[in-house]
Amino acid sequence: MLKKIAIFGVGLIGGSFALALKRAGAVGQVVGVSRTAATLERAKELGIIDVASTSVAEALEGADLVLVAAPVAQTGKILASIAPHLRPGTVVTDAGSTKCDVVAAAREALGEKISQFVPGHPIAGAELSGPDAALADLYVGKKVVLTALPENTEADIECVAGAWRQCGALIHRLSAEQHDSVFAAVSHLPHLLAFGLVDDIARKPHADLLFQYAASGFRDFTRIAGSSPEMWRDISLANQTALLRELDDYMAQLERMRAMLAAGDGAALETVYANAQRARHAWSKTIETAEKPAPRGGN
Amino acid sequence: MLKKIAIFGVGLIGGSFALALKRAGAVGQVVGVSRTAATLERAKELGIIDVASTSVAEALEGADLVLVAAPVAQTGKILASIAPHLRPGTVVTDAGSTKCDVVAAAREALGEKISQFVPGHPIAGAELSGPDAALADLYVGKKVVLTALPENTEADIECVAGAWRQCGALIHRLSAEQHDSVFAAVSHLPHLLAFGLVDDIARKPHADLLFQYAASGFRDFTRIAGSSPEMWRDISLANQTALLRELDDYMAQLERMRAMLAAGDGAALETVYANAQRARHAWSKTIETAEKPAPRGGN
Repeated sequence: MLKKIAIFGVGLIGGSFALALKRAGAVGQVVGVSRTAATLERAKELGIIDVASTSVAEALEGADLVLVAAPVAQTGKILASIAPHLRPGTVVTDAGSTKCDVVAAAREALGEKISQFVPGHPIAGAELSGPDAALADLYVGKKVVLTALPENTEADIECVAGAWRQCGALIHRLSAEQHDSVFAAVSHLPHLLAFGLVDDIARKPHADLLFQYAASGFRDFTRIAGSSPEMWRDISLANQTALLRELDDYMAQLERMRAMLAAGDGAALETVYANAQRARHAWSKTIETAEKPAPRGGN
Repeated sequence: MLKKIAIFGVGLIGGSFALALKRAGAVGQVVGVSRTAATLERAKELGIIDVASTSVAEALEGADLVLVAAPVAQTGKILASIAPHLRPGTVVTDAGSTKCDVVAAAREALGEKISQFVPGHPIAGAELSGPDAALADLYVGKKVVLTALPENTEADIECVAGAWRQCGALIHRLSAEQHDSVFAAVSHLPHLLAFGLVDDIARKPHADLLFQYAASGFRDFTRIAGSSPEMWRDISLANQTALLRELDDYMAQLERMRAMLAAGDGAALETVYANAQRARHAWSKTIETAEKPAPRGGN
């Protein structure tokens, strides 16, 4: 049972965390902190937070756990504002989509208090954002990746892991480097590719004609191109090295496929397509089994 | 009202056409032709066809309309088998995803009877195939692109258009070249890209780790990589020229984006992402409005 948690950023991610902990009866008091007064007000109306605070000192006073769930680009600033008020016994975590950059920013901001910071990434999200999008169910059956630091104690890691488990999430552990390399391949690259395709089509002189005939395959393929440009700009830059590596691999793959197509080599193309289809079906089966939502309120 | 239609290939596409016409009361008799006896038998059991035929001559006897809905690679052979039995007054159409190659094959197979062939492409489909996947509703609110030939009479074009309208579809007209160029961009290229990404990931030594963290964005982006490898090999080769052109445009786009990323040029990346997001939202709104299904059985 957490006596008090402080949440910096009470939108979809932070708000859902608070709602889930409250539903599980796993937290006494939730204090919300946000740059935007209206957001805080709304979060309070929705019962996401108990106290709206504009004072970091007040928010941290007596908190067991602090979640930083603001846009990744703000994480460093927020951690720097937290540092002077961070007492022993308070654990800080975050929810950023990239981890090496967050760890570097945290080391810079927290200095010797870095051992109190356990970096995390909940693999859940939605098109929507803001406190109104928050759901107590958001994390049920979803993965949360913790990229613990050598300085962390197992007790502090378990404090963060336990809170996420109370939200119904499944805890995974990777190094920050592994995390960023994995998500460059399965998330950041697909986003870049989808944005790139839609922009490419939109800039063609006959774009209207093209969009007119785009159907359900196009809709699904490009759904992620509807995501926030600012957020994905930040993620792309934050994970630049791993993303460049994955992009180069993919561009080499396209060069190979272009050669097959230009040579009319149907057998070679079919081998690529069939291998992809097989892997996609296998993945899809695994994920369907693994992600069956747990019963409501389960943990 | 069509007295008799003959359908070559009684799977999802041909079967749904028959069911829709029957529901609309727009056809007297449906004769099915297939290479596979079991498929014909099943189509008959499901009430998709009235008569299962293995004789092309018998199937064409007195038919107003013939739909060739077999895999594209078989279209030439089927048209060649139809040619000697094709009488004046019978109109032939197809449902292939590429049109320039079908037109060339039809000219070769039908010779002087080419004026009786009105090429078509219904923009509808599903992951499933075979007669059991056929739905009377499949074409409701969907587009059918006719790529009429200079030799076609308006009456013959109208015969095909009218049948599709009875299925609830919306008729569009393009040249075969326009058609193939449009679908290379909005359908064939995305398929190639999705197959390419999944194959690329599957061949990495740590593929299992990667797939383990792939989530909903990946799922939608790669859904079309679950499609039939044989079908997409054939489509890729059939539309080789236009697909190569679109692939080259896209690879140039990726080169530009790679340079932005390598230079850490967040503003440039954000411009691409924001333009894509804007276009994606605009498209999505248009399509949602246009594709509201018509009332059941409507036309």
